[in-house]
Amino acid sequence: MNFREKLEESSRRNRSLLCIGLDPDPALMPIADVLEFNRNIIAATSDLACAYKPNLAFYEALGPTGWQALKGTLEAIPAHIPSIGDAKRGDVGHTARAYASALFEVLGCDAATVNPYLGGDAVQPFLDYRDRGVFVLCKTSNPGAGDFQDALVEGRPLYERVAEQARAWNTAGNVGLVVGATYPRELERIRALCPEMLILAPGVGPQQGDLEATVRRGQDRRGGGLIIAASRQISYASKGRDYAAAARREALALRDAINTYRVLP
Amino acid sequence: MNFREKLEESSRRNRSLLCIGLDPDPALMPIADVLEFNRNIIAATSDLACAYKPNLAFYEALGPTGWQALKGTLEAIPAHIPSIGDAKRGDVGHTARAYASALFEVLGCDAATVNPYLGGDAVQPFLDYRDRGVFVLCKTSNPGAGDFQDALVEGRPLYERVAEQARAWNTAGNVGLVVGATYPRELERIRALCPEMLILAPGVGPQQGDLEATVRRGQDRRGGGLIIAASRQISYASKGRDYAAAARREALALRDAINTYRVLP
Repeated sequence: MNFREKLEESSRRNRSLLCIGLDPDPALMPIADVLEFNRNIIAATSDLACAYKPNLAFYEALGPTGWQALKGTLEAIPAHIPSIGDAKRGDVGHTARAYASALFEVLGCDAATVNPYLGGDAVQPFLDYRDRGVFVLCKTSNPGAGDFQDALVEGRPLYERVAEQARAWNTAGNVGLVVGATYPRELERIRALCPEMLILAPGVGPQQGDLEATVRRGQDRRGGGLIIAASRQISYASKGRDYAAAARREALALRDAINTYRVLP
Repeated sequence: MNFREKLEESSRRNRSLLCIGLDPDPALMPIADVLEFNRNIIAATSDLACAYKPNLAFYEALGPTGWQALKGTLEAIPAHIPSIGDAKRGDVGHTARAYASALFEVLGCDAATVNPYLGGDAVQPFLDYRDRGVFVLCKTSNPGAGDFQDALVEGRPLYERVAEQARAWNTAGNVGLVVGATYPRELERIRALCPEMLILAPGVGPQQGDLEATVRRGQDRRGGGLIIAASRQISYASKGRDYAAAARREALALRDAINTYRVLP
């Protein structure tokens, strides 16, 4: 089963487009053990999430034990729910191969995020894993996203060119796009350009993306093809000992809110 | 002493613009112990290099022990020679802070490489470490670099806009650019746009960049401001037990070749 099939199955089973980010921040966690914290978040939400998404930055910031915690976290995700390694990697060919190996073989992620700035040959080593998902940064959720992504190339913003290029790379059906929920207009445009592709949309929480507009404009013709990523608003819904129960409440509410905006066939 | 001062001192002391990449590849190493291998490469070349540059991809591909090997490698670099963490990171603000902390605090790198695609606010957490160096990917060395970097924005290639933006970010004097030695014409243009900034130029080895053109066009008015990065051609000059001696021979030859093209005042 490839990434997309696995995602569609977990999405159907849990009636969910919600991807839960697992981004440990010692300053916000009520317990010190990252792996235990993540395991409890996963156990409390595994019937609500279509995917889990650890962002590697937060594990690297923990020091040498971080990679052990990351590996343990990935192993704690139920086998039927896909993992997305949010790494945003990008490097020249032979180095990109090492990154792809780290994410897909060493860590065993079902999908990964990549940065397109270096061009097609830098993304290819990821694409070569045809059973894994590759999400290409297109229009990111941050305020400064437009600095380069909105630069007009032949009269159209660069992110559209990236979307079209990613569509061309999608010969194995394993390519998706990252589009911030903070930019619903751009999301609509990208969905029109790439009607068949998966879109991973972060930014509905503290970044204040518009959930309704994101779901309405980002879903494909079958009310899917979209992954809404939320991290801090779920993991740190409570900073107390009830963090897992609070995460579950938040995840349930968000999953259901997303579903109210879906147009299911 | 900040990164630039430290680099200029090591460059003067070793009469060198050569930065040696430390990119362990188990398939090419004659011994299994990555840290021992790197220590021997460093010991054999520390009077020839102006900097060392581990690329994080190769350590991540080693699995959970990789970060220990990376940390040990950074500790093995003599204190007077700066380290450049070649990570090419880029993520939204609060995540970029975690990456910057991992590179500058956990690993203790003197400088790092970053990807500009996400825009200024994603680079800012790195820039905030004013005593460290931040090398922004501008025109990369790979064949597909032009896919997006050459896109014409208001009649000029995107990489020029990135160079100008990086120049604007350089208020603390800690910003540099990555420009592949495989693109000497573009390097010349970038040097003209950014006469004061450091340029890190990889690609003179197996990627077949033009060394003479890179040094002649990339150096600043004082015959410096340029770092020529070489990895595989030095570390794997010999695949036998004489790897350290072979690395030294290769590094010496490359350092001296670079110096013949410098115009020193």
